[in-house]
Amino acid sequence: MANEGVEALLVTHLPDVRWLCGFSGSNAALAVTERQAVLFTDGRYTAQAREETRGARVVIAKRSALKEACALLAERVRHAAFDPAHTTVADLGLMRSVVKAKVRRSFFEPLQAPMVSDLRMVKDAGELAAMEGAAKLGCRLFEEIVPHMQSGHTETALAAELEYRARSLGAEGMSFETIVAAGPRSALPHGRATTARLPRNGFVTLDFGVILKGYCSDMTRTVHMGRASREERAAYDAVLEAQQAAVNAVKPGATCGEVDEAARSVLRRTGWARYFTHSTGHGVGLEIHESPRIAARQEMKLEPGMTITIEPGVYLPGRFGIRIEDMVAVTATGHRVLTPVTKDWIEIHSGEGRARAKR
Amino acid sequence: MANEGVEALLVTHLPDVRWLCGFSGSNAALAVTERQAVLFTDGRYTAQAREETRGARVVIAKRSALKEACALLAERVRHAAFDPAHTTVADLGLMRSVVKAKVRRSFFEPLQAPMVSDLRMVKDAGELAAMEGAAKLGCRLFEEIVPHMQSGHTETALAAELEYRARSLGAEGMSFETIVAAGPRSALPHGRATTARLPRNGFVTLDFGVILKGYCSDMTRTVHMGRASREERAAYDAVLEAQQAAVNAVKPGATCGEVDEAARSVLRRTGWARYFTHSTGHGVGLEIHESPRIAARQEMKLEPGMTITIEPGVYLPGRFGIRIEDMVAVTATGHRVLTPVTKDWIEIHSGEGRARAKR
Repeated sequence: MANEGVEALLVTHLPDVRWLCGFSGSNAALAVTERQAVLFTDGRYTAQAREETRGARVVIAKRSALKEACALLAERVRHAAFDPAHTTVADLGLMRSVVKAKVRRSFFEPLQAPMVSDLRMVKDAGELAAMEGAAKLGCRLFEEIVPHMQSGHTETALAAELEYRARSLGAEGMSFETIVAAGPRSALPHGRATTARLPRNGFVTLDFGVILKGYCSDMTRTVHMGRASREERAAYDAVLEAQQAAVNAVKPGATCGEVDEAARSVLRRTGWARYFTHSTGHGVGLEIHESPRIAARQEMKLEPGMTITIEPGVYLPGRFGIRIEDMVAVTATGHRVLTPVTKDWIEIHSGEGRARAKR
Repeated sequence: MANEGVEALLVTHLPDVRWLCGFSGSNAALAVTERQAVLFTDGRYTAQAREETRGARVVIAKRSALKEACALLAERVRHAAFDPAHTTVADLGLMRSVVKAKVRRSFFEPLQAPMVSDLRMVKDAGELAAMEGAAKLGCRLFEEIVPHMQSGHTETALAAELEYRARSLGAEGMSFETIVAAGPRSALPHGRATTARLPRNGFVTLDFGVILKGYCSDMTRTVHMGRASREERAAYDAVLEAQQAAVNAVKPGATCGEVDEAARSVLRRTGWARYFTHSTGHGVGLEIHESPRIAARQEMKLEPGMTITIEPGVYLPGRFGIRIEDMVAVTATGHRVLTPVTKDWIEIHSGEGRARAKR
């Protein structure tokens, strides 16, 4: 805060609150001054706040946690910074309503650059262990679910099986709505599971993650049901090569744009670039989407401890799509892939009751 | 819009976008003028946007859906309204950045009262059917899960079983993180499932909901494992009486505050009011928490088509808690309970392998 010239900070984005003081409830405002941090929540969380919170005093607000946090700041400091990316215009109005009219417009100042989310990009050893645990659980789920894939089963049934196993193995929940995109639906980058059925012949994309100790995992694998065409196989090989090139580009000092370009250039060379319609990846941690963005022209440099996804894909509308995604941690010397399950071509022949992996 | 003196409206809150035009993707900005509605999203949603959107032209934005929506509005109208409760300070900056400098501060005006969320409070027949389906599925899940409750099982195992059945029966997902709060944890109003075990003797609160066709259900039942004390039974009877009194108070023209008071006055009379630490309920629909709030002093009047929860509870810290929750639709003449599963006392004696319901 001193570096940024900030006298006090109001934190209301819940993952930021959790990262700073441990409290994981759904209503919280954290007032941070040079000398003290005070967490405001409400009566539903009296016991939980005491149990979880570290490094901050806990106050159970009578009416509004947000307004009481602002009132405390107004008593103690002359200016307080807030995060404009996670503060609504309405909340800013509430925040200002507890400040004396004379300084109402000037008391709260938007942070000029993200502060807590930038700090959160670099994970410490405990966080990395939690994320590695979540990623490994994801890999185990993929290995367990492939033998269950049979043409005719619905996407939702497969998602149900996956999520049940996740929960049974201790996941606190899924880190986002499970994507099972079968046949032509694999061409939808965000094809949440529906009642569509796994095809006799075609791709199925599985994109899912679990939450362990609050931390998210995120991985994607695309498998083929039945015998693939040459074009399908060529597309898969191109995506895999692009994905591996981007993974290989992950190291301290590399820019996010360079990592994106590593994937994109493979797809340009192999002729699939026009079907790669999104960015290459994103940071992941307490939230499923965090900084940094792994996208074209992003100048941010990777640092040890950052944890990102690498997930290029190609999508041919109405026909098929392929995406392959790993979670990758930046290390002091390069990178470590947190999702060690195979990315090799997997072809599933129904009736056999199990998958055959062929290369 | 004409009634509110609004020339154009920018809609960015995703449930509002979905309610207005059907699009359910995760990136959207809807620009509405007197003559036209235009939906902006990105390349990931090309196919989905075409398939889902009704009553709006679809534009796939090259860079930012939000900024392109604002640019269109800036060309066509002199002022556009936005929803301050769902627009961040940072997004307002982005929105303004595409408007000519001369009118930058004045072009976007915050809505003085919620517009789309107020419209969304009253459900039409199709929405009510979706919600009734979701609520019925919830009831079926409760009936199926009770025979699975055995002391020693973990809360997460029970949640896993419940969620697996929900998915298998066609739910698109759970409408919020499933609450299974066992023994002393039942005193936590928001006790998400943990690895704590169902007690030999004590309450277990189940609070959960499913999503069907985009619409949420929400219900709570509290059952007792083993033989209850007189105090526990008295508390249950008081909560049930309070809950029923509030349900009975639901009718067109009643204020939300009156419904809250109906529950609260029963708990005052029976001596439990000090342990009822939250409000009585909330609207539910595309979102799990919507307007109106069913809380003390809320003057809003109920109207036919509104769908709300009625969920009083009592919580004795460190000892036990009880909550009973139904979803209730306001009808032309009164109300209809959408969660018809029993609220009678249920006592589970482990080892018998099934629940006995006693009154």
